[in-house]
Amino acid sequence: MATLLSGLAERYAAVRAETDRRAAPLSDADATPQSMEDASPAKWHLAHTSWFFETFILSPNLPQYRVFDPTFAFLFNSYYEAAGPRHARACRGFITRPTLDDIRAYRQHVDAALIAALPDLDAETQALVELGLHHEQQHQELLWTDLLHLFAQNPVEPVYDAHWTSPSAAESQLAWHRHEGGVSEIGAAEAGTFAYDCERPRHRTLVEPFAIGSRLVTNAEWDEFIDDGGYETATLWLSDGWAWVQEHGVRHPLYWRAEPDNRPSQFTLAGRKALNTADPVTHISYYEADAFATWAGLRLPTEAEWELAAPGLSDAFGRCWQWTMSAYLPYPRFQPAAGAVGEYNGKFMSGQFVLRGSSIATPSGHERVTYRNFFYPHQRWQFTGLRLAKSL
Amino acid sequence: MATLLSGLAERYAAVRAETDRRAAPLSDADATPQSMEDASPAKWHLAHTSWFFETFILSPNLPQYRVFDPTFAFLFNSYYEAAGPRHARACRGFITRPTLDDIRAYRQHVDAALIAALPDLDAETQALVELGLHHEQQHQELLWTDLLHLFAQNPVEPVYDAHWTSPSAAESQLAWHRHEGGVSEIGAAEAGTFAYDCERPRHRTLVEPFAIGSRLVTNAEWDEFIDDGGYETATLWLSDGWAWVQEHGVRHPLYWRAEPDNRPSQFTLAGRKALNTADPVTHISYYEADAFATWAGLRLPTEAEWELAAPGLSDAFGRCWQWTMSAYLPYPRFQPAAGAVGEYNGKFMSGQFVLRGSSIATPSGHERVTYRNFFYPHQRWQFTGLRLAKSL
Amino acid sequence: MATLLSGLAERYAAVRAETDRRAAPLSDADATPQSMEDASPAKWHLAHTSWFFETFILSPNLPQYRVFDPTFAFLFNSYYEAAGPRHARACRGFITRPTLDDIRAYRQHVDAALIAALPDLDAETQALVELGLHHEQQHQELLWTDLLHLFAQNPVEPVYDAHWTSPSAAESQLAWHRHEGGVSEIGAAEAGTFAYDCERPRHRTLVEPFAIGSRLVTNAEWDEFIDDGGYETATLWLSDGWAWVQEHGVRHPLYWRAEPDNRPSQFTLAGRKALNTADPVTHISYYEADAFATWAGLRLPTEAEWELAAPGLSDAFGRCWQWTMSAYLPYPRFQPAAGAVGEYNGKFMSGQFVLRGSSIATPSGHERVTYRNFFYPHQRWQFTGLRLAKSL
Amino acid sequence: MATLLSGLAERYAAVRAETDRRAAPLSDADATPQSMEDASPAKWHLAHTSWFFETFILSPNLPQYRVFDPTFAFLFNSYYEAAGPRHARACRGFITRPTLDDIRAYRQHVDAALIAALPDLDAETQALVELGLHHEQQHQELLWTDLLHLFAQNPVEPVYDAHWTSPSAAESQLAWHRHEGGVSEIGAAEAGTFAYDCERPRHRTLVEPFAIGSRLVTNAEWDEFIDDGGYETATLWLSDGWAWVQEHGVRHPLYWRAEPDNRPSQFTLAGRKALNTADPVTHISYYEADAFATWAGLRLPTEAEWELAAPGLSDAFGRCWQWTMSAYLPYPRFQPAAGAVGEYNGKFMSGQFVLRGSSIATPSGHERVTYRNFFYPHQRWQFTGLRLAKSL
Repeated sequence: MATLLSGLAERYAAVRAETDRRAAPLSDADATPQSMEDASPAKWHLAHTSWFFETFILSPNLPQYRVFDPTFAFLFNSYYEAAGPRHARACRGFITRPTLDDIRAYRQHVDAALIAALPDLDAETQALVELGLHHEQQHQELLWTDLLHLFAQNPVEPVYDAHWTSPSAAESQLAWHRHEGGVSEIGAAEAGTFAYDCERPRHRTLVEPFAIGSRLVTNAEWDEFIDDGGYETATLWLSDGWAWVQEHGVRHPLYWRAEPDNRPSQFTLAGRKALNTADPVTHISYYEADAFATWAGLRLPTEAEWELAAPGLSDAFGRCWQWTMSAYLPYPRFQPAAGAVGEYNGKFMSGQFVLRGSSIATPSGHERVTYRNFFYPHQRWQFTGLRLAKSL
Repeated sequence: MATLLSGLAERYAAVRAETDRRAAPLSDADATPQSMEDASPAKWHLAHTSWFFETFILSPNLPQYRVFDPTFAFLFNSYYEAAGPRHARACRGFITRPTLDDIRAYRQHVDAALIAALPDLDAETQALVELGLHHEQQHQELLWTDLLHLFAQNPVEPVYDAHWTSPSAAESQLAWHRHEGGVSEIGAAEAGTFAYDCERPRHRTLVEPFAIGSRLVTNAEWDEFIDDGGYETATLWLSDGWAWVQEHGVRHPLYWRAEPDNRPSQFTLAGRKALNTADPVTHISYYEADAFATWAGLRLPTEAEWELAAPGLSDAFGRCWQWTMSAYLPYPRFQPAAGAVGEYNGKFMSGQFVLRGSSIATPSGHERVTYRNFFYPHQRWQFTGLRLAKSL
Repeated sequence: MATLLSGLAERYAAVRAETDRRAAPLSDADATPQSMEDASPAKWHLAHTSWFFETFILSPNLPQYRVFDPTFAFLFNSYYEAAGPRHARACRGFITRPTLDDIRAYRQHVDAALIAALPDLDAETQALVELGLHHEQQHQELLWTDLLHLFAQNPVEPVYDAHWTSPSAAESQLAWHRHEGGVSEIGAAEAGTFAYDCERPRHRTLVEPFAIGSRLVTNAEWDEFIDDGGYETATLWLSDGWAWVQEHGVRHPLYWRAEPDNRPSQFTLAGRKALNTADPVTHISYYEADAFATWAGLRLPTEAEWELAAPGLSDAFGRCWQWTMSAYLPYPRFQPAAGAVGEYNGKFMSGQFVLRGSSIATPSGHERVTYRNFFYPHQRWQFTGLRLAKSL
Repeated sequence: MATLLSGLAERYAAVRAETDRRAAPLSDADATPQSMEDASPAKWHLAHTSWFFETFILSPNLPQYRVFDPTFAFLFNSYYEAAGPRHARACRGFITRPTLDDIRAYRQHVDAALIAALPDLDAETQALVELGLHHEQQHQELLWTDLLHLFAQNPVEPVYDAHWTSPSAAESQLAWHRHEGGVSEIGAAEAGTFAYDCERPRHRTLVEPFAIGSRLVTNAEWDEFIDDGGYETATLWLSDGWAWVQEHGVRHPLYWRAEPDNRPSQFTLAGRKALNTADPVTHISYYEADAFATWAGLRLPTEAEWELAAPGLSDAFGRCWQWTMSAYLPYPRFQPAAGAVGEYNGKFMSGQFVLRGSSIATPSGHERVTYRNFFYPHQRWQFTGLRLAKSL
């Protein structure tokens, strides 16, 4: 037991340190504004992940625990109805105080209490700590994508990390991995490694024979789609997608810009860069992914197809999230986790699509083959791309 | 062949007549305004269904066919990008001219040409006529639901048909029909009876053991949900659903009104009526259906479960459409129909949920067990209700 | 006294008949939809003007008067808070019933009661009848301008009156009428002829020497403004005006359309017509009028200047309303009329500009030199034009 | 001449130092977000006022002047169309970089160049420097009011200056200062002291006999208005005002909050404080000021009345801006200043009302009796209050 606990303590320290590492280059000002309602300030991510441990672990289990600041419960609750009222989501960008240093002190206060308490927590509470660490890793990714969005609104185009490089392509030729179909199991097994409630229960699914692309769709291929009038051809698009293209004048992936020499540039965490055509395309919406697949005479994979094929793919993880054609819905016999953390996943099961894999922004060790990420079909500020599929 | 053709001609006459019958009680004024962007004026339905035959059958196949009015192609195209530009959807309510009589003349013009042409059409074009009739039946239902919505905006609460009665309940006691699960086939077979492209191809699906309610959820049961604080309890709701409840102040089904004696009334096509508690609840959104099921400790059926169980249900059809928990997505190997009518269904496959069955407003003969109706989760101006299910 | 009363009765009959004459070419459908929140359906105008007499004359003064329909008090109150709750302004277009014939019967019901009661009404109530007639004349103008707006939304471009002609120009050469300035009186005298409360009290005003254009600005002159890039030159515009131009893509007066031969057409109550360049420009906003004057190196007149100069102008009335640079504000010692009709004018005294004169749509006898019309600076669906002025 | 120049240099240094003093308590984070489109970040104010000197003085007149940062022309132009394209107003809150220190360096760079250049500038350019200083003083006031608005959005209610006190009342008893009326002159004289173009030309105006309140309306009086149902009584309000009250649920001045003990508190730059009932009411809109005056059976003064009466008032300045009933319009023979600074005032002359006096936030020396401040009738984040008037 001691070893296991010590493992959790080590892991806790490592995950918390990674959050701090990602926030290290930021000033208090960088960490404060909110560039759109979907995104949150870096300061908020730093605080909210600490609030999670304080609210779900420390306060309920440690009688002597002193809450760091009683206003934080209101400020840093994200969406947990069961955890009480909270600050309006659209107003997260006005919290100039507490300062970034205050938030760092909050993190240390929570860390000290949690590390001290860890050996005495029961197994169920330890499982909540584990959940809190995975939760924090999700916010590590959001911290980067939200920051990228914020910096992209600034005409001076700030650089977060001059050494940041885009995910490289796995291979140049597209091959097809065939799968004979049949009844298989997908989803996370009950025991053993960690998984979110929405990945469970592991269950049987029936898949027809299909093939899946051996690599992700590249910027070069996306450029062909643009050159072929992809964004001007209504019949390639879902109805909602075409309305979205028209309303927002969408003509390319989110951070691309047409340059005078006709070679697009892309805004990145290293600032504006010439587009690397061999890289996987990223920052596309489901609508764009679907239109591209239609243009190519192919389709997106289902999440079951993706999960079955993933072990054979060399770029399933670490480059970009891959839109699937599966709506984000409960698996058969899905039960939300007990208590307030039951709001973690289940209540988002309408209107969104599943993405699989992981991205360059996903912290190491957070990815797994059963992972179900989900976003609305118009959203594209995450590192989202696609892999093609076809029925056989 | 002659018999078959004559069958189609008879059917054509019958369907077109039913549209006219539904519009008969309406004045030109009743048939003109548009009460919200989702709905269309009755006059528009009458014209658009005729435009369908003119555009997809008469003009392409009959060299001598004289278009009734060249402006109608622009006015009465709904959403077919391949059929050219069209009047803005939100502006359908300003077409005071052509008059209702003009539209009726348009209908007769199209009918005369089509009936005359029918014997000489090839099989593929006959299939398009068949599609046009099913299309028209869908608009017959919309004509009623859109009119109900329009009349509901009018403080004088007009009566469309004093003899209109709400759908009666199948049985008072709720029983559970059990299904052992396994691999079964759903969807429409390729040959034989008519089906929309989205119901095809018939394909295998894997279902786990489940039970489905023997009857629809009633107004009395919905009243219990209200009394138990259903609309005030955030944790019962999907996140998007709760936001919708808050934004619109939703406290009951669409056409209910709290009355001083605490017994709700309901606005119907017969005007305002006392609520019949034994009737199936209608005019609820997916969000409401899902929250009710959560409150009841149960869930909605999937569309596969519904389709497998439907033959054993006495109120599957003719009362109200039943929300399923399945997103409206393509079946495996789905191919949209060729040509402009390929836009009929496929381009709507994002963000919507499937409803099964049929309603009191569905014209006789239009329903079938493989039928996939679909609406956005917040929409509820159709005759939408629910049936409960559970996993075994 | 008898003569005077009989004069009022005759006038009542004449004004009411003119409303009916204007509505005569309309079907129930034409009279039902609402094309924007600023405009109202013809049916509503017909009913609301009758509601005015019923609410402010008949019901309070005639104990035996039987209200025609008790729902009309709610349906046809425009904005009188003191007269109780009312139907939402934006929902006036959904009242398909009562029918146009019902409304006509309502008008006759009110007319019969009012004509019968007239001889016995006291002077104060007679004054309210007089107010009601002027009120009705305002709605006669609105009936036409609202209908023009509705028909303009219809791609078939309906014709209201094939013989409708635009207002002709007074003279071709622009001359300048000079005024030496000084302290003068403007506004309506207390006794004698009718005036709205906002035209009173007559009061002294100080005007500096000025000159005013002898005729209205013409379409030809407006075309020069367009050709000179008037709509693309930010520095000509008020800040709010430039924002309005950008947001709505304004490039010409409301009902103009660029034609392939480069000669604009204009939608009118006679349908679409070639633009008569010698006619006064109409359907322009205050923002446009001000930008034009700035472009011309001139300015708009104040309402005092206009009122002092009007007796010397040959086209002051009957062509188009003329924007002045005066905000619509109370005259010194202004007192709103007593009772509910005190809401007639005074509560609109913020954010609007005064227009003077009258238009081709103004009923004969309604115009007067002290008349203060008022609209928001972006509004232009009325017959609005301009006359230039300059300081000396 | 040397003395005069040296006077301008001293004044330049003093004004610029006051801006820095006001920003001194702010962190980079405090100075970055934008709490609504009307407001701007403190950092933006610091930079924009420097951009004014760089753009209108240094770059056009000093051949060797090196622009501090070429991106600033785009970032910190407010609304000068003639000065080229600019960053969208609504996006001012995303400029986390340049940092506050960068902006301070920018200020020093501009200051050094301008102080050095000052002796050699011609009189016209010196006048632009003078304009730039008055411009900067306006932004000093905005810096505080925008910061107050930002801090008010933060549930932790930050304190800007613990010693900040609200403006005290001039006297407890309201007396009436009478003015016999007649033709008088208002506006700024051409020569002599500085004034904005919109305060000119000095011109004759005719005023009828009136009386004006000897002191500002107090919080205690406003509380009476609330207690008497002021915010619930439609007939007290302008039509646009009542719509604004309903839409936003307005029930009290902007920064008031009802407290459990029934005594309101007010959010201030010293944080939340108990309301001092003897203080002048502030943070009210024109709509509220007008409704209050109507409730009191009185009215607001015109700007001419205010200007004529001001020399006799002990609290005309330094407490709060006072709404007048005058629309912000050009004075007779108004000419905007030449060049880009002609956009300073003139283009805002529609839809706004004039406020007179000055507030506690107005920097010392910026106020004058001819000063015309202006805001839209719904705006109330400035220190806005009222003084009553009546006709005699």
